[in-house]
Amino acid sequence: MKTPENQLIQKILGKSSRSNDLKSGLRVGIGDDAALFAPRSGYETILTCDWFLEEIHFLRDRHPADSVGWKCLARAASDIAAMGGTPRCFLLSLAIPNELTGRWLTDFLIGLRRASRRLQCPIAGGDTTRQNRVLINVTVIGDVRRGQALLRSSAKPGDIIYISGRLGEADLGLSALRSARARIRPCLRKHLYPEPRIALGQWLADHRLATAAMDLSDGLSTDLPRLCASSKVGATIDESKLASATVGHDSVPNRNKRLALALNGGDDYELLFTVAPNKTQKIPLAYRALKLTAIGEITRGTGIKLSHPDGKTSPLKAAGWDPFRDP
Amino acid sequence: MKTPENQLIQKILGKSSRSNDLKSGLRVGIGDDAALFAPRSGYETILTCDWFLEEIHFLRDRHPADSVGWKCLARAASDIAAMGGTPRCFLLSLAIPNELTGRWLTDFLIGLRRASRRLQCPIAGGDTTRQNRVLINVTVIGDVRRGQALLRSSAKPGDIIYISGRLGEADLGLSALRSARARIRPCLRKHLYPEPRIALGQWLADHRLATAAMDLSDGLSTDLPRLCASSKVGATIDESKLASATVGHDSVPNRNKRLALALNGGDDYELLFTVAPNKTQKIPLAYRALKLTAIGEITRGTGIKLSHPDGKTSPLKAAGWDPFRDP
Repeated sequence: MKTPENQLIQKILGKSSRSNDLKSGLRVGIGDDAALFAPRSGYETILTCDWFLEEIHFLRDRHPADSVGWKCLARAASDIAAMGGTPRCFLLSLAIPNELTGRWLTDFLIGLRRASRRLQCPIAGGDTTRQNRVLINVTVIGDVRRGQALLRSSAKPGDIIYISGRLGEADLGLSALRSARARIRPCLRKHLYPEPRIALGQWLADHRLATAAMDLSDGLSTDLPRLCASSKVGATIDESKLASATVGHDSVPNRNKRLALALNGGDDYELLFTVAPNKTQKIPLAYRALKLTAIGEITRGTGIKLSHPDGKTSPLKAAGWDPFRDP
Repeated sequence: MKTPENQLIQKILGKSSRSNDLKSGLRVGIGDDAALFAPRSGYETILTCDWFLEEIHFLRDRHPADSVGWKCLARAASDIAAMGGTPRCFLLSLAIPNELTGRWLTDFLIGLRRASRRLQCPIAGGDTTRQNRVLINVTVIGDVRRGQALLRSSAKPGDIIYISGRLGEADLGLSALRSARARIRPCLRKHLYPEPRIALGQWLADHRLATAAMDLSDGLSTDLPRLCASSKVGATIDESKLASATVGHDSVPNRNKRLALALNGGDDYELLFTVAPNKTQKIPLAYRALKLTAIGEITRGTGIKLSHPDGKTSPLKAAGWDPFRDP
């Protein structure tokens, strides 16, 4: 039936790969009232959803449409990585202006399908409607072996705090997008096409190496207190160690600016995880070429502190991204 | 940690009922990167999501905030009813203006929690952000015994087509909201607080009575062709029978207007289902006080027809709600 909405759904569906769908446990996908998904025996289901809104999370005149497609799925899948799980399928809710249903939508779907293939996470359904701005909401369904999920609430005093990758790169990439300064161009890719750390999360969960984990979406200074509040603990971050896991001197010569990027830059989708002291020898310097850095320690109490090279400490102020705080 | 976003999340969470959560299979709810849900053995998972947007799906100055809260969950759960399933938990994605985080949000949550309790479907997680208009997306996770889901794709020629309830009531309720005409007031409730037909869907699935089913959200003339396209069949609707399952003569004296409401009125969330001829004697006139009406028959081919009292037929034109069709 060729109603305008049905045609849009057909375009989103494209040439679906039925065999991939079945591998993912998807019995019924787009086209019915809802999707049917066969859970794996011995696994728990992971559920997460994420807004991705024009003017809030991306700019239509700055972000290529294929990056919008990639990133809306990648950032939602990052929550599955943070639980140590495997993405299985996703639902796409898309509201777009009529004039974007041509080329923009085609490019958006190219990026979305690329992320979907990379993550082996096929589309299971969704909802479409019309709006004067692009509104996206993505729900990702994942799974993890029963009892193995990495939670935020189980960090213990004495645990060592790790991060993956280099923090602040995505924030610097956003600056590159806005300013076109050549020396920060390499970070653009991390801003436009972030890679959720699925393999790292699974490895930590499978080997029961992490006591707690979350993904860094709003910035370390905002996200670490969330993990600590959830675990009812405090933390001390070692400024020198953190400085070694941020953008390079060649990109940002000023040390304080590099540190601010590491503390407050959002959109990195790296993992923050804690490891019991007797297991830290099992954490390599890099996992599959992804740098892992110990940056501090979980403490008793509720204070979150930054320890400076001179031995002094100062409270860590949450200055990452918060949509409800006025800039 | 008292960031503005965290405070908002705390308000949404409220006094959660942990025992209800556990009954629903929810192991970890709001507060972690994602929710953890233990699927029931022998069941398949049902996944569905729905937009509910200010100015498209509701008007902030006309729809009470508690109706917005009720309806955003009820209409998403209606897709679970259409599959013959049980709602288990939901994710709420909410974007609201700062000035609505007080009274409006409180009332919204009253309606949402009332629907959540009625449907025994606790909140499992979500995402919040700021926007100048209210944007809502709800994902409902349900389940159904393996192999029992009611699909759209399995109607067969000769099957009898049924609908539950009275079509067009919600559309008439919307007119009441706009005009304040007293005689159509009774339909207002159906527009503001629709009841997803969960029990009916489960009964049809448990007793394997329906060959196919879907819920009526956009209007019979738009939704029936979707079921037929999915099943690769046609249908003939008997105008006289349909006329007996729409709003009453006392609400709308004009017969043609009543018929147009039944064919094209949206938002009813009644079930449309098909029954093999040898099982129709098992379909009562009403299921738990909910009227069930045979309105036509599935046919070979792809035509969707309306048969008139004079014996003539005419093609049924899709004239229900389509967000991408210009009014």
